[in-house]
Amino acid sequence: MSGDVSRPSGRALDALRVVSIEPGFSHHAEGSALIRMGGTEVLCTATVEPKVPGFLRGQGLGWVTAEYGMLPRATHKRGQREAARGQQSGRTLEIQRLIGRSLRAVTDRRAMGELTITVDCDVLNADGGTRCAAITGGWVALHHAFSKLVRNRVLPAVPLLGQVAAVSCGLTDAGAVLDLDYVEDSAAEADANFVLTDRGAIVEIQASAEGAPFTDAQFAALHTLARNGVSALFAAQHAALPKD
Amino acid sequence: MSGDVSRPSGRALDALRVVSIEPGFSHHAEGSALIRMGGTEVLCTATVEPKVPGFLRGQGLGWVTAEYGMLPRATHKRGQREAARGQQSGRTLEIQRLIGRSLRAVTDRRAMGELTITVDCDVLNADGGTRCAAITGGWVALHHAFSKLVRNRVLPAVPLLGQVAAVSCGLTDAGAVLDLDYVEDSAAEADANFVLTDRGAIVEIQASAEGAPFTDAQFAALHTLARNGVSALFAAQHAALPKD
Amino acid sequence: MSGDVSRPSGRALDALRVVSIEPGFSHHAEGSALIRMGGTEVLCTATVEPKVPGFLRGQGLGWVTAEYGMLPRATHKRGQREAARGQQSGRTLEIQRLIGRSLRAVTDRRAMGELTITVDCDVLNADGGTRCAAITGGWVALHHAFSKLVRNRVLPAVPLLGQVAAVSCGLTDAGAVLDLDYVEDSAAEADANFVLTDRGAIVEIQASAEGAPFTDAQFAALHTLARNGVSALFAAQHAALPKD
Amino acid sequence: MSGDVSRPSGRALDALRVVSIEPGFSHHAEGSALIRMGGTEVLCTATVEPKVPGFLRGQGLGWVTAEYGMLPRATHKRGQREAARGQQSGRTLEIQRLIGRSLRAVTDRRAMGELTITVDCDVLNADGGTRCAAITGGWVALHHAFSKLVRNRVLPAVPLLGQVAAVSCGLTDAGAVLDLDYVEDSAAEADANFVLTDRGAIVEIQASAEGAPFTDAQFAALHTLARNGVSALFAAQHAALPKD
Amino acid sequence: MSGDVSRPSGRALDALRVVSIEPGFSHHAEGSALIRMGGTEVLCTATVEPKVPGFLRGQGLGWVTAEYGMLPRATHKRGQREAARGQQSGRTLEIQRLIGRSLRAVTDRRAMGELTITVDCDVLNADGGTRCAAITGGWVALHHAFSKLVRNRVLPAVPLLGQVAAVSCGLTDAGAVLDLDYVEDSAAEADANFVLTDRGAIVEIQASAEGAPFTDAQFAALHTLARNGVSALFAAQHAALPKD
Amino acid sequence: MSGDVSRPSGRALDALRVVSIEPGFSHHAEGSALIRMGGTEVLCTATVEPKVPGFLRGQGLGWVTAEYGMLPRATHKRGQREAARGQQSGRTLEIQRLIGRSLRAVTDRRAMGELTITVDCDVLNADGGTRCAAITGGWVALHHAFSKLVRNRVLPAVPLLGQVAAVSCGLTDAGAVLDLDYVEDSAAEADANFVLTDRGAIVEIQASAEGAPFTDAQFAALHTLARNGVSALFAAQHAALPKD
Repeated sequence: MSGDVSRPSGRALDALRVVSIEPGFSHHAEGSALIRMGGTEVLCTATVEPKVPGFLRGQGLGWVTAEYGMLPRATHKRGQREAARGQQSGRTLEIQRLIGRSLRAVTDRRAMGELTITVDCDVLNADGGTRCAAITGGWVALHHAFSKLVRNRVLPAVPLLGQVAAVSCGLTDAGAVLDLDYVEDSAAEADANFVLTDRGAIVEIQASAEGAPFTDAQFAALHTLARNGVSALFAAQHAALPKD
Repeated sequence: MSGDVSRPSGRALDALRVVSIEPGFSHHAEGSALIRMGGTEVLCTATVEPKVPGFLRGQGLGWVTAEYGMLPRATHKRGQREAARGQQSGRTLEIQRLIGRSLRAVTDRRAMGELTITVDCDVLNADGGTRCAAITGGWVALHHAFSKLVRNRVLPAVPLLGQVAAVSCGLTDAGAVLDLDYVEDSAAEADANFVLTDRGAIVEIQASAEGAPFTDAQFAALHTLARNGVSALFAAQHAALPKD
Repeated sequence: MSGDVSRPSGRALDALRVVSIEPGFSHHAEGSALIRMGGTEVLCTATVEPKVPGFLRGQGLGWVTAEYGMLPRATHKRGQREAARGQQSGRTLEIQRLIGRSLRAVTDRRAMGELTITVDCDVLNADGGTRCAAITGGWVALHHAFSKLVRNRVLPAVPLLGQVAAVSCGLTDAGAVLDLDYVEDSAAEADANFVLTDRGAIVEIQASAEGAPFTDAQFAALHTLARNGVSALFAAQHAALPKD
Repeated sequence: MSGDVSRPSGRALDALRVVSIEPGFSHHAEGSALIRMGGTEVLCTATVEPKVPGFLRGQGLGWVTAEYGMLPRATHKRGQREAARGQQSGRTLEIQRLIGRSLRAVTDRRAMGELTITVDCDVLNADGGTRCAAITGGWVALHHAFSKLVRNRVLPAVPLLGQVAAVSCGLTDAGAVLDLDYVEDSAAEADANFVLTDRGAIVEIQASAEGAPFTDAQFAALHTLARNGVSALFAAQHAALPKD
Repeated sequence: MSGDVSRPSGRALDALRVVSIEPGFSHHAEGSALIRMGGTEVLCTATVEPKVPGFLRGQGLGWVTAEYGMLPRATHKRGQREAARGQQSGRTLEIQRLIGRSLRAVTDRRAMGELTITVDCDVLNADGGTRCAAITGGWVALHHAFSKLVRNRVLPAVPLLGQVAAVSCGLTDAGAVLDLDYVEDSAAEADANFVLTDRGAIVEIQASAEGAPFTDAQFAALHTLARNGVSALFAAQHAALPKD
Repeated sequence: MSGDVSRPSGRALDALRVVSIEPGFSHHAEGSALIRMGGTEVLCTATVEPKVPGFLRGQGLGWVTAEYGMLPRATHKRGQREAARGQQSGRTLEIQRLIGRSLRAVTDRRAMGELTITVDCDVLNADGGTRCAAITGGWVALHHAFSKLVRNRVLPAVPLLGQVAAVSCGLTDAGAVLDLDYVEDSAAEADANFVLTDRGAIVEIQASAEGAPFTDAQFAALHTLARNGVSALFAAQHAALPKD
């Protein structure tokens, strides 16, 4: 592993891919955003329903949850449709649990009241980093849905405690790099997803050796890349928010 | 039922919605098209695989099949994700069988050889007529995939016998109308889907009384609307084909 | 395709198979009928339950629905039991939706009140045309169930607006023919199912090219065959009704 | 529990219901029989396939297996269709395993060679004792299928070692009784199914206290009833065999 | 089949394996017992819930039910995890129904009131006779749970009408033998499970010819072995009961 | 969150629970270990099969995978059996993927050759930290299975590159603590699982804010606790290895 090898995309080690977030792609959802990170495109929609799951009823708390899916040909090779297979894969369930936890971590669930917001993240085109894109775009969809509730006077203010965004990092032949695309991700020795807030706090870290275990120093390098990388994501989110 | 009432959209009785077909939306699929008919948007991708289902093996015939899905919030009210529910609905299965039959009807399966092409039709936004849009857009995705096989010298020519497109018609308060949107579809006394070829032949007719049964004359009126309406769809398909 | 070839069964082009409808085969159902169309035998039972599905509750409307099944060895080759496979096929779901729509089209759902009638159609022996036989026989089972409700003074009159029956037609080597058996159905270029009322109205048309698309004239020939063919079915239904 | 109370049906304690076995009900199966025991009617079909399950391959042994089903309205109250529910109940699986074991116990699996015969037992009308009727009728369907293989010179002789039939007995208010109908079965303190051969041997006994445990003497009384009762079933089977 | 051959384990024909029942293995369950019969080990837990299934509501009766499972590597060859396969096998369902019936047969369901007790029987190591061990151990777990309800003054007394235990017998090369281990069970001509009470009554008998049918005399020999064999099980149960 | 509050268990902030690892609990598995960490008990078995999954065939590489399950009453409240529910939960799938990745990270898959080892981890009693216990105990079961292959001369040496063990840490009212039990886990603001090797490298980190996001300093404190805490686990593993 060394810095003499360049990244397949030619990007600098600490360079994000081009990010864009287009709100309002969905015609019906209370909030929506189509996020692109390089060749990865995820459509995020937020649906508001005036109820909460049974385990929360009567507690004055709201619920934010997420579902994740991938169109069969979002990938290089067509994947079997999960609806046809009759069940969601472990990977899908793991990802949607992560997205839900990440969004709840910056939501004031008492302030939102007994509502449920379901954020659906569907990958239209995949080129690595889909779960991170889903979190970053999902937050924008969620904000739009909350803003609509404020405009409709259902809520006095958007009950979000801050921004949350996510980025992947990994150890590759080129060294520690930020925002892996599919080619890098497939060959990485280790990869990590960092879910961070705009105030510098950690919501979730998932770091995993795909090949050999890695050292504390390598982990610290990934952490630093992520901490620096997310600022561009917070800016892109901000730019996509509803203007008052 | 009478002509004094105008359509909710203000369209003429025999007017299609605005149609557009954008090829190449998918980054990975051999062929793809994003079709819009008014507020209905369907992403169609065509995947080529060098094999055929067991019942066709060794016969020198290819296979064209389709799958259909709808994003959970493509509709006014969020629908449960079929992958989460663990099975596809009867409606989904019925629609994807229709799309597959329609595309096979204009494919020269002997000329294509022992390949399978799977056309995935995923509804991003729904406003009525999704199955018709899927057939019309699916044909373009299929043509693009075949064209790529021709460019790659896998096939000597595109093995399509002509164009196929589909449109819905229905009996509403405004009378017999072409290309129902969701509001009209929900309230129609009867609706019919016509799958037709550019040479004027019939691939499939599905006409169904939602309320009272209808007369032969009413059915003839629907048939005439469809026969006239599809020409614009054939033009839109043509415009979206690969230029040589 | 030409008239010089005779039908495998030796029947005239416009000849139905022998039809018989035996009511009361089921010991427990509120209404039942065993219909035979040539070698096709379908047991239809109608079950009355004093409730309606959630989406209808409190509207004063009843519900008529249908389920369809086939015994594993109703066919030439044993089919896997759907209960063992763990799900109903798309074909099964498509057929039972058609039967339900057809029966609802002639039912006065307001007059029947908040009851549900489930018509189960189980194919004991199959030789083509099972969905059409199920509709024709299902209507008799439904009438018997309603008649029992009238005898028991639950309803003042049978809430049926007329008779509904169905027949298949197809384009074969022998030309356009009525009431296809399995051998004809397997080889037909196109086939169509017509669901018609005794007053000459259309409830449903499903016409489908299995091979090459067909012309308007061919479709009209099929439609005429069906229109003439159903009268014998209405007579057979009438003969099987409860005598007062 | 005492003999002063008579049976709901008025039958003597040791009286079977009227039994009839009609072979050939199925148009396509290699063997079939419609068995009636009073109000219980089971259609049994035997399907021959030239293969064996993986665990038997290459051993020169055949396989006989069974599947069991009940039409939704075979019973007083409509039961949910197992195919719709997505799985077979424990009761269904338990019954079909019993039928399969019973038929295998009298089959010379070496003499039949590497064939599989699947006996489908579908209950058209249920009034108690459906599993016993399925075994008794299933044996006739199996014999017919084997006879057809002999006629077609696939086998030199019918590879059956004897007859097998089954009957239920139970402890009721009327005392120990033979061949319970539904009313008796629902209220019995204990019931037992005896699967016996025409040579007086035991294939299977299943005796079960529904209420209080029962004594050895009571069990012996049930066993005696069964031993005497099955002779009429063997005669009915014999009468339904193919005549040479 | 003759007595000249000795048993694989060297045991006498009428000898049980070493039995031990260790209560309290589970940290959380209201009652639990780890039963060992030779190399078979089953963990039984009893869970109390203050509700009854819908069909019992409001009748003043309790419910005792059982579930059965086997760890994937409880056996010589690893079995697929039923949770991964997505359904329980027919064997599993059959066994858990048997355990539930057996325990209910000695429970005073009126005296226990509207509670449900679920007895989970999970096989940690299997060497034949798992269902019998589950019944014998399950009764101890059930008694412990009831005793806890008595200690907590929810019930005035343990609502059990006696003890129930089960043992297998079979016809092997060595003759009729008691308490088959896996090796014997695999090769037995017939096997039988006897579920008996401490007062000498029968709760359930399941006797099944795996090979040739067996005679009344052979069945009587098995029955005698079982009747004598269970006394040691009742003693082991007694020894494992809570001491007051 | 402050150090003035003591832990529910009275343990020091950096104290592990009592750990024990008992090898050989399973009678049939090639390797097994029953690990206890306080009130958490997990039975780990390793099964060797002479084959690899399709995607690895012919590459000379072995495979190590894991499955995870929990007995229904391993917890305070009985959980529904996943086999009965018909599918494994997202939590289960997530955990078993983690265990498999962790064990593969220290396995020399080329040295083990084309074998598959499946490590089943079944929780008998749960009191927090079950996934960590499964990894730590699973490594011992895996080592035993490899040792058996060495003894049987299938492999020249145990193909493990070192030890791997896991421990949880969390932010609680008492501050940053090591090895959370159930009570602490339920109330923690954040928890993290660290999977580490005996050479000080990282295999996997999963850190997650359950409530408010946490700081880099807090994360560092958790990391330090884990790094120190695992040494006792490595010692316990070592003590449980086969003695030569």
